[in-house]
Formats: sequence, structure tokens, C-alpha cells
Amino acid sequence: MDDLALVLAYQKEMTILGHIGALLHWDQDTYMPKQGIQARAEQSAHLSKLLHEKITADEFYHAVERLRKKKLSNEHTIMIKKLHKQIIKSRKIPPAFVEELSKTVSLAQAAWMQARQKKDYNIFEPHLHKIIQLKRKEVEYTKEPGHPYNTLLDDYEEGMTVEKITPLFEHLKQGLITLIHHIESSKTYKNQKIIHLKKNYPKDKQQELVNDVIQRIGLGKEFSRVDFSEHPFSTKIGLHDVRITTNIRNDPLFAFRSSIHESGHALYESNMPEHHFYNVLGRDASIGLHESQSRFWENMIGLRTPFWNFYFPKFQKTFELTNDFTQWMHEVNMIKNEPIRIESDEVHYPLHIILRFELEKGLIDGSVTTKKLNKLWNQKMQEYFGIKVRNDKEGVLQDIHWSLGAFGYFPTYIIGTIYAAQLYQTLLKKYPSIEKDIAKGNYTTIRTWLQKNIHQYGALYLADDLIKKTCGQGLNPQTYLDYLTKKYKTLYKF
Amino acid sequence: MDDLALVLAYQKEMTILGHIGALLHWDQDTYMPKQGIQARAEQSAHLSKLLHEKITADEFYHAVERLRKKKLSNEHTIMIKKLHKQIIKSRKIPPAFVEELSKTVSLAQAAWMQARQKKDYNIFEPHLHKIIQLKRKEVEYTKEPGHPYNTLLDDYEEGMTVEKITPLFEHLKQGLITLIHHIESSKTYKNQKIIHLKKNYPKDKQQELVNDVIQRIGLGKEFSRVDFSEHPFSTKIGLHDVRITTNIRNDPLFAFRSSIHESGHALYESNMPEHHFYNVLGRDASIGLHESQSRFWENMIGLRTPFWNFYFPKFQKTFELTNDFTQWMHEVNMIKNEPIRIESDEVHYPLHIILRFELEKGLIDGSVTTKKLNKLWNQKMQEYFGIKVRNDKEGVLQDIHWSLGAFGYFPTYIIGTIYAAQLYQTLLKKYPSIEKDIAKGNYTTIRTWLQKNIHQYGALYLADDLIKKTCGQGLNPQTYLDYLTKKYKTLYKF
Repeated sequence: MDDLALVLAYQKEMTILGHIGALLHWDQDTYMPKQGIQARAEQSAHLSKLLHEKITADEFYHAVERLRKKKLSNEHTIMIKKLHKQIIKSRKIPPAFVEELSKTVSLAQAAWMQARQKKDYNIFEPHLHKIIQLKRKEVEYTKEPGHPYNTLLDDYEEGMTVEKITPLFEHLKQGLITLIHHIESSKTYKNQKIIHLKKNYPKDKQQELVNDVIQRIGLGKEFSRVDFSEHPFSTKIGLHDVRITTNIRNDPLFAFRSSIHESGHALYESNMPEHHFYNVLGRDASIGLHESQSRFWENMIGLRTPFWNFYFPKFQKTFELTNDFTQWMHEVNMIKNEPIRIESDEVHYPLHIILRFELEKGLIDGSVTTKKLNKLWNQKMQEYFGIKVRNDKEGVLQDIHWSLGAFGYFPTYIIGTIYAAQLYQTLLKKYPSIEKDIAKGNYTTIRTWLQKNIHQYGALYLADDLIKKTCGQGLNPQTYLDYLTKKYKTLYKF
Repeated sequence: MDDLALVLAYQKEMTILGHIGALLHWDQDTYMPKQGIQARAEQSAHLSKLLHEKITADEFYHAVERLRKKKLSNEHTIMIKKLHKQIIKSRKIPPAFVEELSKTVSLAQAAWMQARQKKDYNIFEPHLHKIIQLKRKEVEYTKEPGHPYNTLLDDYEEGMTVEKITPLFEHLKQGLITLIHHIESSKTYKNQKIIHLKKNYPKDKQQELVNDVIQRIGLGKEFSRVDFSEHPFSTKIGLHDVRITTNIRNDPLFAFRSSIHESGHALYESNMPEHHFYNVLGRDASIGLHESQSRFWENMIGLRTPFWNFYFPKFQKTFELTNDFTQWMHEVNMIKNEPIRIESDEVHYPLHIILRFELEKGLIDGSVTTKKLNKLWNQKMQEYFGIKVRNDKEGVLQDIHWSLGAFGYFPTYIIGTIYAAQLYQTLLKKYPSIEKDIAKGNYTTIRTWLQKNIHQYGALYLADDLIKKTCGQGLNPQTYLDYLTKKYKTLYKF
């Protein structure tokens, strides 16, 4: 076998093991009987071990090293560059470190849950402190240039740096605070009330509408399915097998909205380039770009008038609502100043993320200590949101991410949200009457456009380069601010 | 690592891979979107490859060889003996042969389906011929003593031989033919009719009763579940995770009865000795013993009066039946002379198997050729059943087993059925009033008894030795004949 064939064979094997692992997780979160958890953990751990053996195999490494010096096709050159980076990272981090992190994180999660229950950050603090120390050590192993946080960010958002995003987020923050001020000063805000969303939304009817919208978005039953899980997610189990999950919650729009979100992720996964299916190019370009695909459908399609022109009559009929469409659009987009990120609206959401980004950047570079993290959190909540946090559960303990050691992940939520707005703006320029299609529940043109301009490239471009190629410019928070301002000016009449 | 630790570690890894493979199959047959099939085939093939690498690894083989010469505990001695047999078998069969068989079988299945559709055995015959040649070659690689068929039988029913079962099956055959003659000559047979089972049995109501009976048998929701698939099956996904599937068919008892059957399998799996969970001793003793557990619940419990004393009132109420219990018991146990095995009754069923056993034994030893197989089949149907087979689909093409190369499997169906009757007879001796429990829907004593006398031993004994230990004698068709005769004498009044 020549080097290229060997490198492709290794990747194919890793892809297959990865998809098998995805099925183990899917089953764990959907159908697995409760007592199956211990065996499942062993099964997943075994797959991780097999994967780690593959990515760190000498034979694989040497073949990649030799190929780096050869003249290859453009696509193979990119593939080898990506692989090399991943292999170096995996080989530099000692197995003992991986094990220590894994154990620390496991204990930290238990402590986090206990701390939440008791609303007491101090229970979690020593665990977080240990995690931060380990993450800093991890940064030393595989150092990217610039700010130490860059190394962690790069795992999720390749090519993105603190130096790039800090000024953009600062700009966004100021813009959002101003916008929120306008909204909250409006008469409409002061008089807003919930009418439609207080009614009864039977579970089976919610399911019917979920099925309808995901079919329209393009998740055909022959290669996809939707099931129930505690937290909604999307996953790829193999070629022509992408799945999403949803959940029925008190918020009667939760299942519908989260299904639209997950369908965006799943559509991206199902449209990856097939000829690269078994190598690193057949993946997402970044977590942020992945999130842009879910946010595109969730926010830019699913929270706006053309979409509800089609779906409101269905909701009205199904759940016996009045025909007050203005009130409906207001409820769907209602601004509520909430301390909890996952319950927040389109305008507050990015502020929640910026707060976390600022804190975790500081934790990694040492300018913030875990000791005072909860106080600092509450201070920023007061400053940015005007909210007085009542307890740590509502504050610093609300997200699971840090207990998992997932530092560098939060920024991808904003990056995706901004990209989504940029994509929609570009789509609208190309198809000025596309909203007529949306108002008919027809997303064929949109789906094809996303496939052609984003999905088909897989990981061939860095996310920001692909957005530049498609939208004419990279990450631009002003586009998102403009979209929000225009929309909420109309809704809140200021 | 010492040899024993290494051998246990290898088995643990193989067990984990096996359970992951079981999940892939479970998902494929229950929830997988149609187009996922190609990727799934690759995933399953990859796991098989990993498993084959393990079982044939030199390091493993040499450790087992060294342990064979050492003084070990009784249980470890048995474990090493079993492992050695499996390893030798795997190492003796060349990979090229495995690949050829796998390809042949894959083509044969397609041909079998086409042949069925056209009701023409000649389409399938050349494929079957090839399979037979390969199976004979397989026998040569790993020859067990005695009849060449023994090697194949031993894969499913370790320790059982043609020499042992031929006279027993012959005795059973004669007994069954006589019994059928009595039944079919009776007035009751001539006047029998279907009343209850012609009614409407709504799907959701069937499901409720399925859930009720499997809970009573002992499949708790915390370690088990039931889903739908084309063909019912049971599977073990891991420690404390056993699952069954069912299906709603035209026969309104199909889902209920097949769920009882699969629950018997699943209960056995869930009660295997936990301290041997990750080695070969924590498995079934044989396929026949596995089948005895399903047949025990399906036939000895689920087709008899005490069981229906409890469940008929539920069925009556749920499906609005008359209170004619005698008629119900008659319909549940109705004798119908059918050419199709899977549609046949308790009395005809073993005859179907004996016919197949005789033919496949002949195919392997060369006394039967594939050329005339369909004619020979029809001749035996005439002789044993008095049935004139109308076409090959109803005859020699009805089962999938031969197209899969599964020669030696069929006898396990009878072995299990006979063992079930022997177990029930033994249970009744130990607990003379057990049928009072059954009539109350209470199977606790039975479950505990099976666990203590069969399940807890895993593969520590050969199946027939375990039956001898529990029931006082090994495979005894007369016990089964006695049970059938007594039961059907009452039902058909002859």
C-alpha cells in the first residue's frame, strides 16, 4: 500500500469507529434502558481507545510526514495539513495527561451537579481550579501562536483567535446593550403579554408539526429520523444516516424550534462531500460554521414573518388560537431579560456568550481566578444585563461546559449566529423574492443554495474563509446588529 | 500481565466488540433509516474484522496453549478448554475461505429471494450446491469425530452428534405421525372453527398486553425494552441491557406469543453469571438450551390452561370476546396441517424440523444431491404430513437458513422444544401447585427456579449435561411426546 492509500485507509477506519461511537451515544440518549449505562461507558471508552491507537500510530504518522514533502493535489495537500495538525496534537499530549483530565472532569461533573443542587459555587470551585490548571498544561503541550486561549479555541474554530474576535465581540456587546436599552424603554415592552403560548399544546400535535417542518427543511425519512431525548441533538451515524432528537417541554415552541435548529445541523451533515466521506475533508469546517447552519434555520428562517405566514395558520388551527398574527410574532420573538442563557432571546443570547468568553479567556491567561469567579459573573450580569443574580445556580453554575473542560467552545455560538445572519443577507441579495417561497413553506432554493455554497465544501476551507468566499467578508457582527435592530425596531416600535 | 489476565482481557475486549455489534444489528432492524444500510454493513464488517484479529491473535493463542498445561481452578479449566476449541477452529479456517463463503452466501441470498419470487428452485440450486461444497470443505478444516455433519452441529449444539440425535428424532417422528393421525381422525378436528381469532385486535391494545406479559415474565423496564422489527428477535447489548422486538401481524396472537418467546431468550441472557460476564463462561450453553428457555415460556406456560385462566379474561375484556374459554383454548392450540414451518402448530412443528435435518445431513454426507432436493422435500412432505406441496416457495424455498449457510442449526429448534417439556415436568415435580401461581399471573417461583437451575451456570456445563443435572436425564423426546399426547387427547377428545 502506498502512503496515500494507507493514510486514506486509516481515516476510513477512524471514521467508521467514530460513527459506531455516534450510534452508542444516540442509543444512550434515546432508548437505552437505565441500567445499561455502565456497559455503555465501557463500550464508548473502548472505541475511544481504538481511535486513539489509530490517530497516534507510528505508521500513520510517518506516512503523513512523508506525504507532507510530496507534491499532491490541492485537496490532498489540505487533507494532509489537517491530519498532520491533529496527529501532532494527539502525539504531544501524553496518555497519562488524557487520563488525568478525564478523571478530573468526571469528578468535576458530579461536583457541578451537587453544587447546582445546593446553589453553592464553592463546592465546584476546587474542581474548576484543577481543570483550569490542566487546560493551561494542555495549552503548553500544543501551543498555537498568540493568546494562550487560542490553542483551545482552535480545537473548535480552526483559524479563529482571541486577537480577531475580541474587538468584534466588544463591538457587538456595545451594540447589543444599546439595542436592549431601546427595546426595554419602549411602551410595547412595558405592555407585552403572553396569550397564545399559554394555551394547551398537546404532545402528539406538536410532534406532527415537528415532522412536517423537518421534512420541509429537507430531512427525508429515508436517510433521517427524529426521536426523543432529554436534550435535543443531531448526529451522523453513517453515510445517508443522520438523526435528530427533540423533547416536549413546558415552552410549547421548544420542540418545534429545537427541531428546526437540529435539522439545520443534520442537513449540513447529510450534504458533506461524499467523495471525502471517509477522510477529514468530509467534515464540518468548524463548530461555528456548524452552528451557523442550525441558527440559519432557527433564527433567520424560523423566527421571522415569512416563515410564520405559512406556519401560523397551521398552529392556529391545530391549537385553536385566535387569528392575532401580530401578537403571535410578538410572542415568538418576545424580549425577556433572563439570567439563564438557554432561556434567553435572540438579542440577549450573544451577551450571555460574551460574558462567558471574557471570563474563560481570563481564567486561561490567569487574569481571572476561580476563587472570585462567581462574584465576577454576577458583577458582569449587573453591568451588561442589569440583572441581580439571586444565586450561583442561576449564575456561574448554569452551564455544563466548564465542568466538561470545554473551554473555547462558547464563542462558536456567537460566531455561528453571526454567520447565519451574513448568509441570509447574501441569500436575499441573490434571490430577492426568496421570502415568497418561505411564505409557501418551500425551501428548495435555500437548501440547494446552502448545499452549493457551504455544505459541499466540507472542511476544504477554514470556516471564515468559506464565509468570505460566499458572503464577500468574514465574521461581521455589524450585519447581525443591523438585522436585529431592524427587526426589533418594527416589533417594539421605537 | 500474566497469561490468565491476558486471556481474560482478550475475552473482555471481544465481548465488548460483540455487544457493540449487537447494537448495530438491533438498530438496523428497528430504527435505522433505509439508506443507512450500506454504511451499517461496513460498520458491522469492520467489527467482525476486529473480532477476527483478536480471536486469531498469536499472543492470545500462545497464552491459552500455556494455560492448558497449567493447573487451574475448575471453572478456568473449562474456560480454557472452550477457548482453545474456538481459537483452533478460527485459526484453521483460512481467511480466503471465510471471504469466499461470505461472498457465496451473499449471492445465494439474493438468488434465494429471486427463486422464491418465481417459485422456482432451479434459480437457487447452483448457489446451494456451491454452499454445500464449501460447508464440506469447512468440515474438513475442523473435523469433529463421527458423521461429517457433527462438525456443523457442534457450532450450535456443542457435544451433540448425529449418532445421538438420529434415533431420538426417529422415535419422535413416529410418535408424532401417530399422534397427528389420532387428532386428524377425531370429530373435533373435523368440526373445528375459528371464532375469537377472527375478530379485530387493535394494535395499541395488543401492545399493552405485550408489555404486561413481558413485565410479568420478568423483563423489567430498567434493564430491558421492546421495539418493533420485521422479524422478532432478542439481543443482549451489554450488562443489564437485554432487548426484544416484536411485530403486529394478521394473526392477532403473533405479537403476544412471539414476545413471550423472545422474553424467554432475554431472561436467560439477563441472568447469565455476572462474574463471567466478560468471558466465554458467561454465555448460553448451546443454541438448543437457549431455545429451551423461549419454548418453555411460549409453549409450556403460554399455550396452556393455567396461563389463559389469567389472561383470557383480559383478552376477553380488551377485544370484546365471548366468554367461551373452551373455544379459546382450542383456537390457541388449533392443529392445522400447513406446509409452512413457521405457521405450524406445536405437534407438526418438530416434523418440519426432522424433515430438514434428514435432508441437510444427507447434503453434507453426499447421500442427497442439491439437484433433486426439491423433489425429495415434496416426497417427505407427502410421506410425513400427507401434504402435496404446490410449489417450491411453499416447499424447499421457505426457509432462509440454507441460503445463509446455516447447516446444523435446525435440530436446535427441536432440542430446545424437548428440553422445555423436560424442564416443565421437573418444575412440576418440585412445585406440584405451581399452576396456581401461573393462573394468578405470578411467575416469581418459576423465574427463580430457572435462574438457579439453568441460567446461573452460563456455559459451565454442556447443555445436555445441565439438563441431566436438573431433570435427571438428557434429551428425551418421549417426555415431549407424553406431554403432547395428554394435552391433545383432552383438546381433540380421542
